[in-house]
Amino acid sequence: MSELISAVDAVDVRFPTSLELDGSDAMNPEPDYSAAYVTIRTSGGDEGHGLAFTVGRGNDVEVAAVRALAPLVVGLPVEEVLNDLGGFSRRLTGDSQLRWLGPEKGVIHMAAAAIVNAVWDLYGRRTGKPVWRLLAELPPEQLVDLVDFRYLKDALTRDEALDILRRAEPGRAERAAHLLEHGYPAYTTTPGWLGYDDEKLVRLSKEAVADGFSQIKLKVGADRADDERRMRLAREAVGPDIRIAVDANQAWGVQQAIDWMRALVPYDPYWIEEPTSPDDILGHAAIRKALAPVKVATGEHTHNQVMFKQLLQAGSLDILQMDASRTAGVTENVAILLLAAKFGVPVCPHAGGVGLCEMVQHLAMFDYVAVSGTTENRVIEYVDHLHEHFTDPVRIREGRYLAPTAPGISAELHPDSVAAHRYPEGPVWEAKAGT
Amino acid sequence: MSELISAVDAVDVRFPTSLELDGSDAMNPEPDYSAAYVTIRTSGGDEGHGLAFTVGRGNDVEVAAVRALAPLVVGLPVEEVLNDLGGFSRRLTGDSQLRWLGPEKGVIHMAAAAIVNAVWDLYGRRTGKPVWRLLAELPPEQLVDLVDFRYLKDALTRDEALDILRRAEPGRAERAAHLLEHGYPAYTTTPGWLGYDDEKLVRLSKEAVADGFSQIKLKVGADRADDERRMRLAREAVGPDIRIAVDANQAWGVQQAIDWMRALVPYDPYWIEEPTSPDDILGHAAIRKALAPVKVATGEHTHNQVMFKQLLQAGSLDILQMDASRTAGVTENVAILLLAAKFGVPVCPHAGGVGLCEMVQHLAMFDYVAVSGTTENRVIEYVDHLHEHFTDPVRIREGRYLAPTAPGISAELHPDSVAAHRYPEGPVWEAKAGT
Repeated sequence: MSELISAVDAVDVRFPTSLELDGSDAMNPEPDYSAAYVTIRTSGGDEGHGLAFTVGRGNDVEVAAVRALAPLVVGLPVEEVLNDLGGFSRRLTGDSQLRWLGPEKGVIHMAAAAIVNAVWDLYGRRTGKPVWRLLAELPPEQLVDLVDFRYLKDALTRDEALDILRRAEPGRAERAAHLLEHGYPAYTTTPGWLGYDDEKLVRLSKEAVADGFSQIKLKVGADRADDERRMRLAREAVGPDIRIAVDANQAWGVQQAIDWMRALVPYDPYWIEEPTSPDDILGHAAIRKALAPVKVATGEHTHNQVMFKQLLQAGSLDILQMDASRTAGVTENVAILLLAAKFGVPVCPHAGGVGLCEMVQHLAMFDYVAVSGTTENRVIEYVDHLHEHFTDPVRIREGRYLAPTAPGISAELHPDSVAAHRYPEGPVWEAKAGT
Repeated sequence: MSELISAVDAVDVRFPTSLELDGSDAMNPEPDYSAAYVTIRTSGGDEGHGLAFTVGRGNDVEVAAVRALAPLVVGLPVEEVLNDLGGFSRRLTGDSQLRWLGPEKGVIHMAAAAIVNAVWDLYGRRTGKPVWRLLAELPPEQLVDLVDFRYLKDALTRDEALDILRRAEPGRAERAAHLLEHGYPAYTTTPGWLGYDDEKLVRLSKEAVADGFSQIKLKVGADRADDERRMRLAREAVGPDIRIAVDANQAWGVQQAIDWMRALVPYDPYWIEEPTSPDDILGHAAIRKALAPVKVATGEHTHNQVMFKQLLQAGSLDILQMDASRTAGVTENVAILLLAAKFGVPVCPHAGGVGLCEMVQHLAMFDYVAVSGTTENRVIEYVDHLHEHFTDPVRIREGRYLAPTAPGISAELHPDSVAAHRYPEGPVWEAKAGT
C-alpha cells in the first residue's frame, strides 16, 4: 500500500514579545509574535513542519483555517503530492468552498502557506536537502510546472519563465558553491523599533555596523519630528556609507507618504517600505514616481501573485519583499521570483517574526542560484529574535546568512518550545495569567 | 449606568443548497449557502442581527473570526458606538494584532462586516427605521464622518464627499416617496445557473420576463460551446430588448476573457461579470478596453475600499457590484458609494446567497435617495432562494424590490431556521449525516 499523509496537526504557539516592545512599529505597538504551527505526518513515519506567522490575537483563527484545509490533505499519497506540488497548491487554494474566504488572501491563504511549506519541508527531509538546494537542483521544466499561469500570462508566460530558468542553469553549481562559502547578504531591523529610546537606537545602530551589516532599517510613521530626529541620530551613528532603509508599516496616505518622506531625504534614506496600504498598487506607483531616487519597497502584506504581478506591471516598486507565509508558501513564491526576474526587480524578502528568517533564506538562496543569478542589491532581512526556539536556526556571520545545510525548510520548533508556548494552556501563558 | 453591548453571539448556519445545484457556477460547483450569523445584545435587552455569507466549508473559520473580534465590542457603551460608527469600524478593522490577518481582507474583514451590519441593524431598530432610511436621513456631515479617508484622499477628499451628499440633499424626500411607491429595479440570476439544463434555462428565462424583469444573468466560463449555445437559447427566449448579463466567476485569464467573450458578442451580452481574478485591477482595465461596448462588472470579491478606489482610478469597470458582507459592512459601503458617485460609475449590488438581497437593498436605496440620486442603469441582483428563513424577507413586485419598512437591516433569521440549520448539530445536518 502506498504511503499516505496521515495527519495535519496545527498548534497555536505564542511568544510574549510585547513585554520588551521587540517588534513595535507604527501599526503594531505591542505584538506577541505567534505562529499557527503545522506538522504534516505520513503513514511511513516522516514529518514536515511549516507555520503561518501572526502577531498575537487571531492566531487561533489561523489555526482554525489550517484545520479547515486539513481534510483536503489527509489521505493523499505522499509521492503523488511531492511529484505534483503545483497541483497540490491549486488543490488548497482552489477548493470551491474555502476559496470564498479569500480568494487567495488573508487567513485562508496564510493557512495554505503553512501547509505548503510543511510539505516542502517533508520533501526536503526525504531527499536529504535544504529546500533552497532542492529547488535549485530541479530542472527548469519541473519548476515552471509549480506555477499557476492562469492569471499571470499577460505578464509572464510559461515560455518566458522557462527562458529565465534556462539562462541561469549553467551557473548553478558555481553559485551554490559560492553561497556555501560566503553566505547571502543580510540587513538588520534590530536597531530601529519604534519602542526603543534614542540611546538604544544609536547603540544598536553602531553595533550593527560593527557586526558587519551594510544596511539597517528604522521604523517610522508615528511622529514626524521623532522620525527626523531618529533618522539624523542613526545617520550620525553609522556614517554615510551604510544604507538606512525606513519602514512606515502602511501608516500613511499617498500624499502624506510623499510629504513625510521628503522631510527625511536630507538623511539619505535608501528605501521607504510599506508607505501606504499594501493593496494600493497605483498609490505605490505615485509615491515611487514622486520620491525617486529613494526606492519604494513593499510585499510583506501583498497577498498573492496577482497583486505582485500588478505591482510590477504598474512600476510600483524598486524592491520586492516576499514573505514566507503571506502568499501560499514556497510554491507561489517560485512564481513571484520568476515575475520579479522578468521585470528585473530585486527580491529582498521580509523576515523577523517567528521563523520567517528561517524560511525566507531558502527562497533568496534559490533565487540567487537558479533564477536571478545574482545577489546585487539583494539583502535578506534579519531580526535577532526567537531563533533559539528552532532546531535549525539561521546562522549570521559578518552581516551574511550562512546557507543552511540541514534537510528541509528550517521551520521546525523545539518540542519544548512548543509545549511551553502553547496558547492559552502552555506554562508561559499560565504563569502570565496568574500574575 | 449606561447601556452596554453585553454579547456578540456567532452561530454557524448552513443550508444544504448543493442538493439542487442552486447557485452553481464556474468556480462553485456545489455550494452549501451558509452564514456566520451574528447577534449583538445590549444590557437593555435590545438586539441587532448581521451575517457574513459563505458557500459552505470554512463557515466555521468565519465564526471563529467573529469570536476573535467580539472582545473588542463587548462592554462598549451602546450610545457611544452608535454616535461614532466610523470610529467603531476603525476599531474593528484597525486592531493592531487582528489586522495582521488581513489587513482589511478575507476572513477577518468579513467577520467585521457581520458585526458592523449587526450594529447598524441595532441602530435601525432603536430609531424605528429601516437602515436605508436611517442612512438617507443622516446629515451629510455625519455620513462623511463614517468614512476613513486615510487611503482614499488621492481619489476622494472629505470636501468632495460632502459636495456629493449636499447636491443630493434637496431631493431626498421626493426620492424616498418615489421609492416607497415604486420600489427599486432588480434583475434576476435565477435562470442562469450552470447546473441547469437547457430546458430549465429557457423556461426560467421566459418566466423572468413574464415576471417583469428587464435583465437576466447567465453563468458562463466552464465550457465555451455550452456558453454559446446557452447564450443563444436565452437570447431567443427573451427577445432583443431584455438585457442579458453574463458572469464568469473569475474563470479566465485576461486574454482568455477577451477571446471567450468575443464569441458571445453576437448574442449581445450586456455586461461580463468577474471575467478574471478579482484582484486584477489592471487586467479588468485591459478587458474593458478590449470588449467595449460590452460592459465590465465586478465587486463581489473586491475586498476593501482601497481596491474599489483603484478599480475606479484605473477605469477597470462600468458597473460596481458592492457586497454586503465582503467589505466591512454598511460603514465601508458608504465610502464605496461615495467613490462610485465621484467617478460616475453605477452601483449594482451583488446579492443572492444568504441574506445578501435583504441587506444590499438598503445600500442601493440609500444610494438612490441620498448619494447618486438616480436609479438609471442601476439594478439590484435578485435570486429567489432562502428568503423564507428571514423575518423581514425581500419583497419583489414586477421586477422591482419594494422598499423595506421594518426597522433594521433585514438580516434577522427566524429562530426556527437557525435551530434547524446549525452546523453540524442542527437536525437538518444530523439527518443528512444519518443517510
